[in-house]
Amino acid sequence: MEGSAHLVEVGHFFYIFIVILLAAKLAGELFERIGQPAVLGELVAGVVVGASILGIVPVDPSQPYGSLVHVMAEIGVAILLFEIGLETDLREMFRVGSSAATVAVVGVVLPFFFGYLFWHLYEGGASLVAIFVGATLTATSVGITARVLTDIGKINTSEARIIIGAAVIDDILGLLILAVVEGLADTGQVSILGVTKLFGLAVGFLAVAMAIGLTTARWLFELVNRMRVRGVLVTFALVFALLLAYLADLVGLAPIVGAFAAGLILSRTNQFDTIVEQIKPVADVFTPIFFVSIGAAVDITILDPRRPENHEVLVIGAALFVIAVLGKVAAGYAVFWRKLNRLAIGAGMVPRGEVGLIFAQLGLLGGILTRDVFSAILIMVMGTTLITPPVLKPLFDRVKIATPGGGEEPLVVKPGIGELD
Amino acid sequence: MEGSAHLVEVGHFFYIFIVILLAAKLAGELFERIGQPAVLGELVAGVVVGASILGIVPVDPSQPYGSLVHVMAEIGVAILLFEIGLETDLREMFRVGSSAATVAVVGVVLPFFFGYLFWHLYEGGASLVAIFVGATLTATSVGITARVLTDIGKINTSEARIIIGAAVIDDILGLLILAVVEGLADTGQVSILGVTKLFGLAVGFLAVAMAIGLTTARWLFELVNRMRVRGVLVTFALVFALLLAYLADLVGLAPIVGAFAAGLILSRTNQFDTIVEQIKPVADVFTPIFFVSIGAAVDITILDPRRPENHEVLVIGAALFVIAVLGKVAAGYAVFWRKLNRLAIGAGMVPRGEVGLIFAQLGLLGGILTRDVFSAILIMVMGTTLITPPVLKPLFDRVKIATPGGGEEPLVVKPGIGELD
Repeated sequence: MEGSAHLVEVGHFFYIFIVILLAAKLAGELFERIGQPAVLGELVAGVVVGASILGIVPVDPSQPYGSLVHVMAEIGVAILLFEIGLETDLREMFRVGSSAATVAVVGVVLPFFFGYLFWHLYEGGASLVAIFVGATLTATSVGITARVLTDIGKINTSEARIIIGAAVIDDILGLLILAVVEGLADTGQVSILGVTKLFGLAVGFLAVAMAIGLTTARWLFELVNRMRVRGVLVTFALVFALLLAYLADLVGLAPIVGAFAAGLILSRTNQFDTIVEQIKPVADVFTPIFFVSIGAAVDITILDPRRPENHEVLVIGAALFVIAVLGKVAAGYAVFWRKLNRLAIGAGMVPRGEVGLIFAQLGLLGGILTRDVFSAILIMVMGTTLITPPVLKPLFDRVKIATPGGGEEPLVVKPGIGELD
Repeated sequence: MEGSAHLVEVGHFFYIFIVILLAAKLAGELFERIGQPAVLGELVAGVVVGASILGIVPVDPSQPYGSLVHVMAEIGVAILLFEIGLETDLREMFRVGSSAATVAVVGVVLPFFFGYLFWHLYEGGASLVAIFVGATLTATSVGITARVLTDIGKINTSEARIIIGAAVIDDILGLLILAVVEGLADTGQVSILGVTKLFGLAVGFLAVAMAIGLTTARWLFELVNRMRVRGVLVTFALVFALLLAYLADLVGLAPIVGAFAAGLILSRTNQFDTIVEQIKPVADVFTPIFFVSIGAAVDITILDPRRPENHEVLVIGAALFVIAVLGKVAAGYAVFWRKLNRLAIGAGMVPRGEVGLIFAQLGLLGGILTRDVFSAILIMVMGTTLITPPVLKPLFDRVKIATPGGGEEPLVVKPGIGELD
């Protein structure tokens, strides 16, 4: 049980795991007490224990401990979206379908266009670089927003459903943009047929998975419920979530999209209550790893304005950050025909994450983006991620939020702040 | 979210995790239905999905996916022993202290002596090899037995407490033997001072951890209980278990000894019920990884009698297996002054695990043991692990088991089988 000959020391990973959980809960508690979402505390805790400051939690997935943290973080965010899917009403999701699609499309087109335009004006010419810069600005990373809305008890609002629905559609659009961008990086060309196939595969997977899931999950879990061994319900629920996450990954979607679909499906089973109750402690153990590791990946050295080499990076990063925020906020206002908290919807779409980084990494490895542009994109990703939790809470608190099915929440208008819509 | 550039593909690990959980639960159910402990099903499922047959679940901890499985398996067995500690009455543990110590000491001395003697007679001379062979036979790996006793609902018997107590003491003795054996392998000498220091450190750690834990855990968890963020109780309970596991590892003990101590301590808190309820689903998700990975490590090719090169290995392995079993069974009978199911105690001590393998690996790397002797030791470890679940259940079922504190169980004497004591 010493394992001294191993590449990975079990004891050392226990140490990392302890630090992650302890930092997450203590900082989460602190932030909640000062009126901020707990997840912001977890992100900040991650910055402190991560590479920039204490260096305890590694995030480089090509290193042994980093890959452990990375995989457990991905399990964590998959379980989070599974849990959110479980607590989401499928019919309500369909009801907001057109709004979500509008937010998604506008929220992809505007940041892409203005990112492209910015680079075109800033550097002149070089349209391939401009396309990459635009692409990195498109895809929302919904984990942060979903967690904030769970923390503040707003996950069952129409606004939350539109955000999550838009993020799912966003992910499909991101997949298509990735294919286009990869084609441009590799061969300078785009295969319309290839992109169409990818789109068909992704949409087809979701449709087929939902159809099969909704018709079979009920009796499948009746069978599981009759099994005698301990812990079958929570285990099979997790297997179901991981399976759909795995299949989503296979067709090129984010695993969390599959996990969310799994939750939607299992919310219609008779064992729903037990599943929710038992998956919660598992989520409590895994999800902090995701948020702490996001914080741990923040590199504060590139933010230091005292370093002259950071100046241009900071300027470009700030510009991209502004485009990233305004593009998604405008997308929120695109659902002009609905009386909703449109600013909150837009703000919920702001965080950019792994997908943008994958685009940027492709551009860097393909020799299209310079290290400076890559760093500026990193600043945009870190900024949009860290700004969302503190902004989203007051936005959701200060105006009337429609909660269909569960009655309307009381109208809360703070002094001096009018209703937004 | 694609992560294609990584050493570890998240999607592929999801696949491995799905296979582990699914195989464990389906085989566990099957074995329970045919009257066997579920854990035997998990072990057999592991053999099927492991390296020898399907090759889906990797176990080599120096490989990326293998190290992931290894670390999550170790978390799993730590949570299992934590849970068992939670459900164990500390006073009852102390009450069986002298019995446990007797079983531990006899169960280390006899297998060591007969292992040494066997090799001395078989090979002649070469006393260093004989010492190594003897050492590999000493240390019980309690995970299997603990899980079987949980599966069949006998974890709260005096017999179970003696087995677990003896396994803890066993681990301390194993630590000392490891130091002796390492000294012999490196320098041919033994440092009495060094061994004494190790012993003092291990016993001191346990004493101090229990003393501090028992005086502080109650108010610590009162504080935790007043925190507002979600999931604090289960998270802090897990942190506590991992912390003691980590510290145990640091002083050279098995992590599970620390995790068990953590459970004993937290069983005295006021939040005990909630902790047990919430740690169960987490255990359900992690522990199958441990048992499936043990099965997956079984190399059935060295058991194939049709291969001539296996013959001597099989003969030596069988001899070591017999010594391993008889030595521990005799240790069970060493508590001659108590009216207990002594055969069941001995049988519960039979499984050998990682500690024996570490001794064997040291000997192999130090050039003291040949590859054949190493393989024979592997056979002994695999055999003692796989034989225990099917044997333990009837042994615990067929005779009266004293359950102090909870009244006596009804005397069950099957036709033709008398009481053993």
